[in-house]
Amino acid sequence: MNCILLPAKNIVHETAQINTLLQVRHVTQILDAKVGESLKIGQIGGQLGTAIIESITQDCIQLRDVQLTIAPPPKLDLTVILALPRPKVLRRLIMDMTALGVRHIILINSYRTQKSYWQSPMLERLDEFVLEGLQQSVDTIAPSIDLKKRFKPFVEDELANLVTNGAIVAHPYSTQSFAQYIKKQPLDKPYLDHPDLKKPPVSGLPSLVCIGAEGGWIDYEIALLATQGCEPVHIGPRILRTEAAVNALLGQWLL
Amino acid sequence: MNCILLPAKNIVHETAQINTLLQVRHVTQILDAKVGESLKIGQIGGQLGTAIIESITQDCIQLRDVQLTIAPPPKLDLTVILALPRPKVLRRLIMDMTALGVRHIILINSYRTQKSYWQSPMLERLDEFVLEGLQQSVDTIAPSIDLKKRFKPFVEDELANLVTNGAIVAHPYSTQSFAQYIKKQPLDKPYLDHPDLKKPPVSGLPSLVCIGAEGGWIDYEIALLATQGCEPVHIGPRILRTEAAVNALLGQWLL
Repeated sequence: MNCILLPAKNIVHETAQINTLLQVRHVTQILDAKVGESLKIGQIGGQLGTAIIESITQDCIQLRDVQLTIAPPPKLDLTVILALPRPKVLRRLIMDMTALGVRHIILINSYRTQKSYWQSPMLERLDEFVLEGLQQSVDTIAPSIDLKKRFKPFVEDELANLVTNGAIVAHPYSTQSFAQYIKKQPLDKPYLDHPDLKKPPVSGLPSLVCIGAEGGWIDYEIALLATQGCEPVHIGPRILRTEAAVNALLGQWLL
Repeated sequence: MNCILLPAKNIVHETAQINTLLQVRHVTQILDAKVGESLKIGQIGGQLGTAIIESITQDCIQLRDVQLTIAPPPKLDLTVILALPRPKVLRRLIMDMTALGVRHIILINSYRTQKSYWQSPMLERLDEFVLEGLQQSVDTIAPSIDLKKRFKPFVEDELANLVTNGAIVAHPYSTQSFAQYIKKQPLDKPYLDHPDLKKPPVSGLPSLVCIGAEGGWIDYEIALLATQGCEPVHIGPRILRTEAAVNALLGQWLL
């Protein structure tokens, strides 16, 4: 937690209240902060800033001199379509994609997604994982998250509308590398403006990335994604864990 | 496990033996492979290839027609110096750095590394995590791993010898971005040849990267690393988990 994010209702003029157990414990036990000290805080969906600790009890911290004047970092012009992974790795994947600044996350079914994953209680906790990712990366704006339980109707009927500025599907067995994909993009590619983007995307990077679960996509899925404009690309001969692959691939957007 | 790696002693002419419980279970339970089917295998430190399952018992699988003719993927020309992280994330970090193809890993002490981490039983299991990373990424060559319990003597006396082709230290509060660092490298930078590297490194990327544990490096550490040629760089305003940061940063070497 590199900042404490609070909902708007907890902030009134220049005072605020931290009243979730996890956050109170973080301030008192991890940060070991005392009355009178300054904390990094932010308003969910709003600005970042600081506040001074007014009082501490076991389940509530009162803040004064709340100053929220810093804009959150820009989001990436990026939608990630992720085959629903094992529940155990879902938390870290949502946290990491949020922390990296992905604007829109779509969890979809795939041949190698086990049906039981869709019944996981972890799917009820996505907001919690998003908050963890925002507090990790010092951001306040949550990505939007959609769940699509049926692969074919989603790809055939909805995907094309999302492919605005180039799209790739990560596939270790593709003949085209991601570097080759980037190089062949025209430099004057039109940039679709978004009101909440602070700067244009890095030239050549697509605005949509599809990433498979463990075991990747099957040929049928790769072919169907390709019909909607998603070009298969690899990032070298090495096969990475889904978590590692997501971060290694999306790391390209950070430079 | 995208391939099964065996020590040289388990391979005799065109026959081989899988006799570790984890690997036997992977073949029988995850892959659900039967007698007569082909398996992807490799020899630790050697070549990759295939073999046919001759027989299966509860604790041993006999293989025939072993053909190891494929060279492992090239290593990255990269040494990673990592502040020893929490034991819980150490396994995944060693796995991921191995899978990404890092040639040399040095785990060092830092101000924010808790002393107890050096007593963790996980440090006895590094070979196991390396094997997991190799089997994940279909590689056979283990990275070398060194443990350096004393930061200052290591940095002052040993680090300079390792800085052969540029060095950076990841630091979210640096004024220089990694992209700026890469752009300022001369294009004709001499390339130090290694006999086991199949291709030259991507131009501008350093051959040594220092990455802190949770909480990053303190100013003293950044300053001491800088005296030995490690330039502080950031990868944007977002602070990532150590695991995510390692993959996002090292992902640059994959393109």
